[in-house]
Amino acid sequence: MEKPIGVFDSGVGGLTVAREIMRQLPNENLVYFGDTARVPYGSKSPNTVLRFSRQIVNFLQTKDVKAIVVACNTASALALPTIQKEIDIPIIGVIEAGAKTACEVTETKHIGVIGTEGTIKSRIYTKCLMELDSEITVVGKACPLFVPLVEEGLVEDRITDDIASRYLGELKDYDIDTLILGCTHYPLIRNTIARIMGEEVKLVNPAYETTKSLKTLLAERGILSKEKNREPIYEYYVSDAVERFISFADDVLPCNVNEENVQSIDIEEY
Amino acid sequence: MEKPIGVFDSGVGGLTVAREIMRQLPNENLVYFGDTARVPYGSKSPNTVLRFSRQIVNFLQTKDVKAIVVACNTASALALPTIQKEIDIPIIGVIEAGAKTACEVTETKHIGVIGTEGTIKSRIYTKCLMELDSEITVVGKACPLFVPLVEEGLVEDRITDDIASRYLGELKDYDIDTLILGCTHYPLIRNTIARIMGEEVKLVNPAYETTKSLKTLLAERGILSKEKNREPIYEYYVSDAVERFISFADDVLPCNVNEENVQSIDIEEY
Repeated sequence: MEKPIGVFDSGVGGLTVAREIMRQLPNENLVYFGDTARVPYGSKSPNTVLRFSRQIVNFLQTKDVKAIVVACNTASALALPTIQKEIDIPIIGVIEAGAKTACEVTETKHIGVIGTEGTIKSRIYTKCLMELDSEITVVGKACPLFVPLVEEGLVEDRITDDIASRYLGELKDYDIDTLILGCTHYPLIRNTIARIMGEEVKLVNPAYETTKSLKTLLAERGILSKEKNREPIYEYYVSDAVERFISFADDVLPCNVNEENVQSIDIEEY
Repeated sequence: MEKPIGVFDSGVGGLTVAREIMRQLPNENLVYFGDTARVPYGSKSPNTVLRFSRQIVNFLQTKDVKAIVVACNTASALALPTIQKEIDIPIIGVIEAGAKTACEVTETKHIGVIGTEGTIKSRIYTKCLMELDSEITVVGKACPLFVPLVEEGLVEDRITDDIASRYLGELKDYDIDTLILGCTHYPLIRNTIARIMGEEVKLVNPAYETTKSLKTLLAERGILSKEKNREPIYEYYVSDAVERFISFADDVLPCNVNEENVQSIDIEEY
């Protein structure tokens, strides 16, 4: 059997990345882990996010994954640089790819980034963007309530509109033409964000570009799946109960998610 | 030294109970634990809340506490009944006391309860109230975004007003005269809740009555502190970084909270 790709997130947001991998790399097996017992990560400290991420990477390695995608901006910002040095298999996050796309699509070179408190405070997007093009100016805005809103399923809701207007209103004072959705939950409220920002602002969803980077990486290492035209195997693991995850994942993903392929595990043991 | 009382919560909400204990039992030493790395509990499953609560009870016992107060409605609803059978020291939650007060203050016998999804789904307040007075009717409403709002510090904010209007609007259709604040975070947005419910609805904060029950319990067991007129010792432990907790606790509590009495621990080890 082909070794799977491991994908993890603090909860369900990373499913937007898993969805993109399923679309662009339909021959790959996937193991997804969502840390639903400890979600959210965005307001937690770098040390805690690193400790949680290490446990998840340990768990994914027990599933014999050939590569890992950190499908969580907060973990990509706060844990990836350290973990990259600690393991032998390739591991990539969502930030570099997101920054690269933003750099390509901006015309005014004024870029906005929205994300969790942890991601925005780390200023990691700013650093990445400045390395790519030193003329770029970046304005970041933490939107701490977006994750609880999405996790509650309020993706099309007046309350979400209100909160988004407030957060994004501040960004509208800057002359940005590109906005990075710097949290994997945010593509799920993309319509709301697009409506408020107006059509002159291009939204960048790092999931797409991250998957392209993943494909290149797997090809370079010679570990792209060679099994064509077969049904890929998708397994899901969560740290809390499976029910809520199933109903959410079944909405987000193009494939069937049910009690047969979702399992609850004790992540603290890893 | 007098043995301390252990108090725990999923995060900072339980500080409203700690504050009440400090006021009513000024001679008691306290050890507070806030599970800030894994907050919130309210949307998580009963098994996860039980596992987390057990770890915290184990930790508090290493501090040689003489009694434990579960200052979290979700943990009181989902974990207390089990843990009560597993340990030898007295342990009480916030629900019985809250139900008792509501029963005493209601005139119409129509009582509302707001809390997390876990607390409301458990129907524990309904069961407690019906046992106290079978004529009482209870209407429960989960308010899942209140905890993230409070944890973000948005205690007086237009967004909190909007969300509260939506949640509580549904309750206004019932003819309740009493509303139980069935989550220890909610007293921190009491003004908002009171404004929306109107002055004809009495708000019940279980913290006050829980502390009275605690006092009775300690007296019955002969373990009330006998050391009068001395400075009590308050220690705080959290599972995430201390900074955010300190700034929050310093606002809520009447005493000084700083880096000397707050410590971060790895709760997963217990």
